[in-house]
Amino acid sequence: MDSGELLQRIREKKSFLCIGLDTDLHKIPAHLLEEEDPVFAFNRRIIDATHRYAVAYKPNTAFYEMNGADGWRSLERTVAYIRELDPSIFIIADAKRGDIGNTSRMYARAFFERMDVDALTVAPYMGSDSVGPFLGYPGKWVILLALTSNPGADDFQFFSDGRRHLYEQVLVMAGAWGTEDNMMFVTGATRAEKLADVRRIIPGHFLLVPGVGAQGGSLEEVARYGMNDRCGLLVNSSRGILYAGDGPDFAEAAAGKAGELQAQMEELLRERGLI
Amino acid sequence: MDSGELLQRIREKKSFLCIGLDTDLHKIPAHLLEEEDPVFAFNRRIIDATHRYAVAYKPNTAFYEMNGADGWRSLERTVAYIRELDPSIFIIADAKRGDIGNTSRMYARAFFERMDVDALTVAPYMGSDSVGPFLGYPGKWVILLALTSNPGADDFQFFSDGRRHLYEQVLVMAGAWGTEDNMMFVTGATRAEKLADVRRIIPGHFLLVPGVGAQGGSLEEVARYGMNDRCGLLVNSSRGILYAGDGPDFAEAAAGKAGELQAQMEELLRERGLI
Repeated sequence: MDSGELLQRIREKKSFLCIGLDTDLHKIPAHLLEEEDPVFAFNRRIIDATHRYAVAYKPNTAFYEMNGADGWRSLERTVAYIRELDPSIFIIADAKRGDIGNTSRMYARAFFERMDVDALTVAPYMGSDSVGPFLGYPGKWVILLALTSNPGADDFQFFSDGRRHLYEQVLVMAGAWGTEDNMMFVTGATRAEKLADVRRIIPGHFLLVPGVGAQGGSLEEVARYGMNDRCGLLVNSSRGILYAGDGPDFAEAAAGKAGELQAQMEELLRERGLI
Repeated sequence: MDSGELLQRIREKKSFLCIGLDTDLHKIPAHLLEEEDPVFAFNRRIIDATHRYAVAYKPNTAFYEMNGADGWRSLERTVAYIRELDPSIFIIADAKRGDIGNTSRMYARAFFERMDVDALTVAPYMGSDSVGPFLGYPGKWVILLALTSNPGADDFQFFSDGRRHLYEQVLVMAGAWGTEDNMMFVTGATRAEKLADVRRIIPGHFLLVPGVGAQGGSLEEVARYGMNDRCGLLVNSSRGILYAGDGPDFAEAAAGKAGELQAQMEELLRERGLI
């Protein structure tokens, strides 16, 4: 999928919502624990109920790995289920991988060949040859960490050479490694005003914006500072949607929450003349 | 295991060798492909043949994930096998993880509770709350990326604020997050002379040093600049040992290579009066 196709899907669904599948066995409704694969059972119902509101899903690998090989199977089944149900969905493995070239090639095989997701989140610390192997797959994307939404973002991402912060250096350098059709950047919603600085460096790239909802970011602020003339945003919500309810109607509660976000996004897309 | 116990094992085995289990289905001897779990079959024979020479094994998660859920099972079996065969071995999951606190907690569960390895490699980009959850497990270790062995290390790790490079800033800040009993740093052997700079900042911490062998680093140089009065080194070799032979005697070839490295390490430990 290239950026034009992604924009097309955003227009069709009137949404730039990404739903984070951070599925935690300790938080899902108790009645699902009797299922053979409770994580997949939960995800399936969430996906059924919410996919009309979302352009992307983002399973977070940590939540699957905590269940070992069975968890990895739940992840594979989830990705396959989304593909089958709604082939227009953009699937992101939120894995924060990155290693020497020889090893990144193996991660690329794992996620782009075997699991066949559309995009993988990657950490920039090890530099170009740790990112390059993911860029050789037509239609697949790297989503590189730039400015994250957590408190620890201050520790190194604002390290400065006097001209630029580290996160800006990442945008400048890595912006040239890929194109607007195979690279996005993670920029957290908890610092929405910083998105203006990000946009000065990479006006055209898509941004994946976590931190709306449980982490406190505001969707309106994100759109104000981060939206461009091709939308250029995927805004993620995880816990706020997944755990909106904890009874037998959890999926309907999740759909309610996702629908609210979609309605706000539709409004923002209209204001910008994108739909 | 604390640093005193690790030093004890180094003295007993007269070795600070870590063997990287980067097991690639495309590189293992063809006759193993008939086994039910070829990756585990290969690892088992490598471990049987080499464990007398090694204080640590370091499976690299990428090589397991490329085989999906089955690969994750091979990884779990490998870790369990090492534990059973030789409980004195220090097991490192080379996973380069790191995410917001809530997610890092899940990775910590995956690797420290469920899989029960001794240490996990972690990327520093997201800062303190991405690392903290791994430090709450008595006897378990974070091995944080500082100066890596790949060409891309130059892209961001040498970004400088005029006083320090980023990798030095990581050592200064993260050196204070943990202790010499729960935190090590990855510092690549391909820049052995830089280990002198590393030792000025963290004289006492253990270092995990990749890049000896296939990547071109020299063991003598690493010891010259990096060894301290408690050894303070785990030196990793992966491909140079695993793929020393490709016939039915591959495990003996691997043992030969591991034995050579152990003999060199014994000599270096003697020179320093550590054994």
